[in-house]
Amino acid sequence: MEDKKTLRIGLIGYGFMGRTHSNAYKRLGDFFPELAYRPVLKAVCARNEERVKAFADQWGYESIETDWKTLIARDDIDAIDICTPNNMHAEIAIAAAEAGKMVLCEKPLARTVAEAQPMVDAVEKAGVKNTVWYNYRRVPAVTLAKQLVDSGKLGKIFHYRANFLQDWTINPELPQGGEALWRLDNDAAGSGVTGDLLAHCIDTAMWLNGGIKDVSAVTETFVKERLHQSTGEVQKVGIDDACIFHCHFDNGSLGLFESTRYARGHKALYTFEINGEHASIRWDLHDLTRLEYFDHRDDSVVRGWRSIHVTDGDQPYMDKWWVPGLSIGYEHTFVHQVADFLKSLETGESCSPTFKEAQETQKVCEAVLKSAESRSWKETGVDW
Amino acid sequence: MEDKKTLRIGLIGYGFMGRTHSNAYKRLGDFFPELAYRPVLKAVCARNEERVKAFADQWGYESIETDWKTLIARDDIDAIDICTPNNMHAEIAIAAAEAGKMVLCEKPLARTVAEAQPMVDAVEKAGVKNTVWYNYRRVPAVTLAKQLVDSGKLGKIFHYRANFLQDWTINPELPQGGEALWRLDNDAAGSGVTGDLLAHCIDTAMWLNGGIKDVSAVTETFVKERLHQSTGEVQKVGIDDACIFHCHFDNGSLGLFESTRYARGHKALYTFEINGEHASIRWDLHDLTRLEYFDHRDDSVVRGWRSIHVTDGDQPYMDKWWVPGLSIGYEHTFVHQVADFLKSLETGESCSPTFKEAQETQKVCEAVLKSAESRSWKETGVDW
Amino acid sequence: MEDKKTLRIGLIGYGFMGRTHSNAYKRLGDFFPELAYRPVLKAVCARNEERVKAFADQWGYESIETDWKTLIARDDIDAIDICTPNNMHAEIAIAAAEAGKMVLCEKPLARTVAEAQPMVDAVEKAGVKNTVWYNYRRVPAVTLAKQLVDSGKLGKIFHYRANFLQDWTINPELPQGGEALWRLDNDAAGSGVTGDLLAHCIDTAMWLNGGIKDVSAVTETFVKERLHQSTGEVQKVGIDDACIFHCHFDNGSLGLFESTRYARGHKALYTFEINGEHASIRWDLHDLTRLEYFDHRDDSVVRGWRSIHVTDGDQPYMDKWWVPGLSIGYEHTFVHQVADFLKSLETGESCSPTFKEAQETQKVCEAVLKSAESRSWKETGVDW
Amino acid sequence: MEDKKTLRIGLIGYGFMGRTHSNAYKRLGDFFPELAYRPVLKAVCARNEERVKAFADQWGYESIETDWKTLIARDDIDAIDICTPNNMHAEIAIAAAEAGKMVLCEKPLARTVAEAQPMVDAVEKAGVKNTVWYNYRRVPAVTLAKQLVDSGKLGKIFHYRANFLQDWTINPELPQGGEALWRLDNDAAGSGVTGDLLAHCIDTAMWLNGGIKDVSAVTETFVKERLHQSTGEVQKVGIDDACIFHCHFDNGSLGLFESTRYARGHKALYTFEINGEHASIRWDLHDLTRLEYFDHRDDSVVRGWRSIHVTDGDQPYMDKWWVPGLSIGYEHTFVHQVADFLKSLETGESCSPTFKEAQETQKVCEAVLKSAESRSWKETGVDW
Repeated sequence: MEDKKTLRIGLIGYGFMGRTHSNAYKRLGDFFPELAYRPVLKAVCARNEERVKAFADQWGYESIETDWKTLIARDDIDAIDICTPNNMHAEIAIAAAEAGKMVLCEKPLARTVAEAQPMVDAVEKAGVKNTVWYNYRRVPAVTLAKQLVDSGKLGKIFHYRANFLQDWTINPELPQGGEALWRLDNDAAGSGVTGDLLAHCIDTAMWLNGGIKDVSAVTETFVKERLHQSTGEVQKVGIDDACIFHCHFDNGSLGLFESTRYARGHKALYTFEINGEHASIRWDLHDLTRLEYFDHRDDSVVRGWRSIHVTDGDQPYMDKWWVPGLSIGYEHTFVHQVADFLKSLETGESCSPTFKEAQETQKVCEAVLKSAESRSWKETGVDW
Repeated sequence: MEDKKTLRIGLIGYGFMGRTHSNAYKRLGDFFPELAYRPVLKAVCARNEERVKAFADQWGYESIETDWKTLIARDDIDAIDICTPNNMHAEIAIAAAEAGKMVLCEKPLARTVAEAQPMVDAVEKAGVKNTVWYNYRRVPAVTLAKQLVDSGKLGKIFHYRANFLQDWTINPELPQGGEALWRLDNDAAGSGVTGDLLAHCIDTAMWLNGGIKDVSAVTETFVKERLHQSTGEVQKVGIDDACIFHCHFDNGSLGLFESTRYARGHKALYTFEINGEHASIRWDLHDLTRLEYFDHRDDSVVRGWRSIHVTDGDQPYMDKWWVPGLSIGYEHTFVHQVADFLKSLETGESCSPTFKEAQETQKVCEAVLKSAESRSWKETGVDW
Repeated sequence: MEDKKTLRIGLIGYGFMGRTHSNAYKRLGDFFPELAYRPVLKAVCARNEERVKAFADQWGYESIETDWKTLIARDDIDAIDICTPNNMHAEIAIAAAEAGKMVLCEKPLARTVAEAQPMVDAVEKAGVKNTVWYNYRRVPAVTLAKQLVDSGKLGKIFHYRANFLQDWTINPELPQGGEALWRLDNDAAGSGVTGDLLAHCIDTAMWLNGGIKDVSAVTETFVKERLHQSTGEVQKVGIDDACIFHCHFDNGSLGLFESTRYARGHKALYTFEINGEHASIRWDLHDLTRLEYFDHRDDSVVRGWRSIHVTDGDQPYMDKWWVPGLSIGYEHTFVHQVADFLKSLETGESCSPTFKEAQETQKVCEAVLKSAESRSWKETGVDW
Repeated sequence: MEDKKTLRIGLIGYGFMGRTHSNAYKRLGDFFPELAYRPVLKAVCARNEERVKAFADQWGYESIETDWKTLIARDDIDAIDICTPNNMHAEIAIAAAEAGKMVLCEKPLARTVAEAQPMVDAVEKAGVKNTVWYNYRRVPAVTLAKQLVDSGKLGKIFHYRANFLQDWTINPELPQGGEALWRLDNDAAGSGVTGDLLAHCIDTAMWLNGGIKDVSAVTETFVKERLHQSTGEVQKVGIDDACIFHCHFDNGSLGLFESTRYARGHKALYTFEINGEHASIRWDLHDLTRLEYFDHRDDSVVRGWRSIHVTDGDQPYMDKWWVPGLSIGYEHTFVHQVADFLKSLETGESCSPTFKEAQETQKVCEAVLKSAESRSWKETGVDW
């Protein structure tokens, strides 16, 4: 350990994502000993002093802050990790970049393209490392999908389809807003399932299949009013409860995306499928260890979808963990992203997705919302 | 048998559907002995005399015709069964109705709403029994889905999604037109996957979830030109190879539909899923014996999707076949439709879907194609 | 049809198997038009005149008999099909053979090896065609498994495992004996799950993997007494409710078999799996259209179990039915056996499994029961 | 952290299990903050100084030892964790107990019952906490299975079946012995799949379903000779490559177990299924997040196996991790065992399975091997 360089982390926000990131930093060294850098949990910041103290104590942060500006001003912090609600991403990220800190930002990058633009500008101007936590790229099965697509095994792509189905907001008694439910509050979140769930689908899709050119969308808000936890009043719900869109990719394939929090029976069912001329691939988050693969070039009588249990040492990231057949889970995707971020410090390359790339995803999200509002096709302006 | 009334069938067309229908008529009595009527294979009609003779010989038709007008004119025929390419449905059906024959017509009813209108008018004016072969309604698992929806078990419906994925036209060397490939010829078929495959999805969807109000669609023709078997020349392909649309149902739920013949790895994967407030249902044609069912009211720690093997005597149609655990297949759906048609002769009720109902499906298909062409939302005008 | 030779069938027994066989005979010509022979439903025989008449009427048998000896004596019958309880197989089959009739006998061939011996002798002495209805060999996916094994794709075999799980006798109030429940009566059936279910597993196993050399078994009768429907009295249950055995095959592989009627949740779950040096295969009856196949020679990163939907024209028997993706069911296995039997009339070859082969299966069943009784290993004496 | 009591760990062995345990100790506090005790990685011990140093550095052990006796003699160690090959368990465990250390021992407890006896005696005499790492009990889905069985939901149990299938030793060129392959060396391991894999199955089985009374087994060694890495010579293979046994449980149910390293296509497929009067349960390690559950009391038309995604806060251990739908993996089972061990320090209860319980599993293993050798049934003498 003594000979390792350190990356001193300042984490802002201690919610669900604060936990996943903290865990990733702490586990990194045990499983990626070859990396030159080691994360150090320098400080965690949040407004509620008592709770941030408890969090720091539990996870082993060396210090706490209750004002993020103070955190950013500290000399002993190398990187700011933003785990706040979406409405605070921009201000913090820009300030951090201007202070010369690296920035790791939760997704979606921002609430709108306009809000994201100065964030991109800031990190680029400051020349600081930056990345956005679209963690699902780094599920080993998903990374394997990327390798298969890039290898040309699928041939020309005809179709891409993805959905992200949940069922946790069906109950109309569930309130909106507050610390736990800011995702239901449009001011804090910027949108509903589009930014929260479809953004993941879009990021993976463009990574695997290239830019999305235009979109035609529909959204729905099934529960029109909910009690707001901040005001104590029943207020109009501003978010999209569900969103569906189809699109053209730059490569000529058709895309189809759906997300909802009203699909009874699905907790967090992110799925995608790619159909190519020669082969197809599909994956889902509930059984994240498996990649399904169909190769038309197989001998015809024994041709079928293969269920690949992605746990072997020659499959992405899996040489770091256990032995064939023994699965890892959701949290490991964050460890992989930390590892790749640290490696990027060694190589000088960027750690994808960068703010710039995440802004392209933002463009699709925004086109989707505008398409739904205007009931018309929208160009995304994506440059992938 | 002696005391049974007969329904004397005149079949037009001996292709794939001619076989499925003939099989259904022949098996009816063995499994539905209680019905008052028995089909009799009176005549089969097609232009090629040699081949229609061979077909009649194989399947046991009493006679053949090579001109469908002659067939319709015969006194010893009670019902005309239309298994021709789509472009001939209207003329035959109208003539048959005018001759006082019952009409069983393959789907889709016609190529356009306009073409379908006089067909509906003709059967209604003549007062003859009529039905359209949307056979998938009568997969026992699908009929069970209908019973569950109608029972109210699902509660308010939020989402309906269906797709029909195939992969048999990816090869650009495959020609269009001719007896075997008329489905690729827009003049004969009226459309591509929309009329051939999505029509099934739409029929089931409206049967289960009510009318579709408006649609927003995209279509694609991946292979732009194919050799035409009638002309011997390479010609523009007029059909839609793929079609995606989203829609609103009258009940406020969102719909999502996709069909393609370019989804490598899927032979005939018709799937649907319905998400309700309390419960969800899904089904697919490749494993047609199973219905998946999720009920949120189950005790939480043991809640999960149930895989129901629909082979018990208390499940739809299954008292007619074997014993629990032993599955039936695709062809049985046609036997069930014949049984229900015969029963409708006894009860005087109509046998759904009638021409009138199938025309509503046609309206959705047409709105879908127009939406795709105009890149805009279209009202369907459906009255379900 | 006029130029076809006929095989005039005399069926004995009109229970569940009487129905499956009748259906097979009737459908044969529609799907196997190229065969030189056609079955003719000449007569059906059973003791209850009223019911046998109803059955004949429903299925289209030309005549009935109430005494099987009279049936066998008739000149217009070519083949006797035995669908009676097991205790009547021997007497009927021997008489039929001696009368020069072909014999198609339901499985298991007999209750004991000793009972089977004169049956084998009789058909061999008479030189009459004979076959036993181990129908599961002719599920297309199972026949495909046979082709794969025979092709050498699996390499040296290490393991064979099969089970047949049901749950229909858990209720202790269920009586034994009588027409419907003779399978629970040891006198009529000869054994419980061993003859009824494991016999199927053993037949398939030896067909796929060669002779079984020795066995070590355990049986259990969970419900010790049941009301007997013939006597009206509560009597000791003589059958085995469950049976498990392991064994050595002649090729050095290990076998493992289990059957029970007390496995809650399984209606008729016949499964088998073969593990070879290079590849493995598995199949189950609840999803009988699929064959699972794993080939270690696949490229390592995309290696996985393939789920083969056995519905293509180049897969066994499937050129006779519909189109890729559209499944057939349980009943078709009997059609296939009739087709193969008729073909054997043309070629002069035997139609496997013959009485001789079925007797080898009987030897394993008997060794299993004796092993369980004596709590010791037993040699089977099988000569495969 | 300051107010936590510590459990100072001395780990012996840094192989695969050394890694899983180290990870468990390190993660404990992050996810089980409420526990009074915290593990401290005080020392790791192994003979190779260079490698043990590297391991200590990677995982953060405070010190190293190269002689386990020295480790045991240290005052600053509270608990000895034994991750050596099986042949060293006894000597170390006994010495540790005699030195008053708590002992956490990898499974199987020992190579034989005789070897295990003084281990049990030692910990009981010393009155030290002890546990054996049968980690699969603490997969949340398996713990849920335990809760369901204990709740009586299944009713009377009829059948228990389990297998553990792997395929990593098919290649005859694979050597035996040495640090990496001691599991193939009978002297080091005591047996092959019986102690390595079936021991897991037996532990879970008796935990879920009670004591195993008698067994009838068969074993096989497919590759008879392998190069030994210690001697450099081709030597007879002493282990069992495969083992199958059936048995009676004390509760009257039948058991069936199989394990092999020659089942092509299975990496680490541990599965079990329990069939009860009212309900059944099944689980497998490849998809360890899911528990399959069938309840016969469900309404008959919607009855089916439920696939429960065990990731909700009201399911065992899952309140400690992420949110519904997001899965954990293999390694978490060890964290759970550490948590339960630490909790047992607070409550004074024992942490199951103790040495005493693990010895009962040993009795079954030994009876299995003796049964296979003698080709006869063996009583296990288990007192569960």
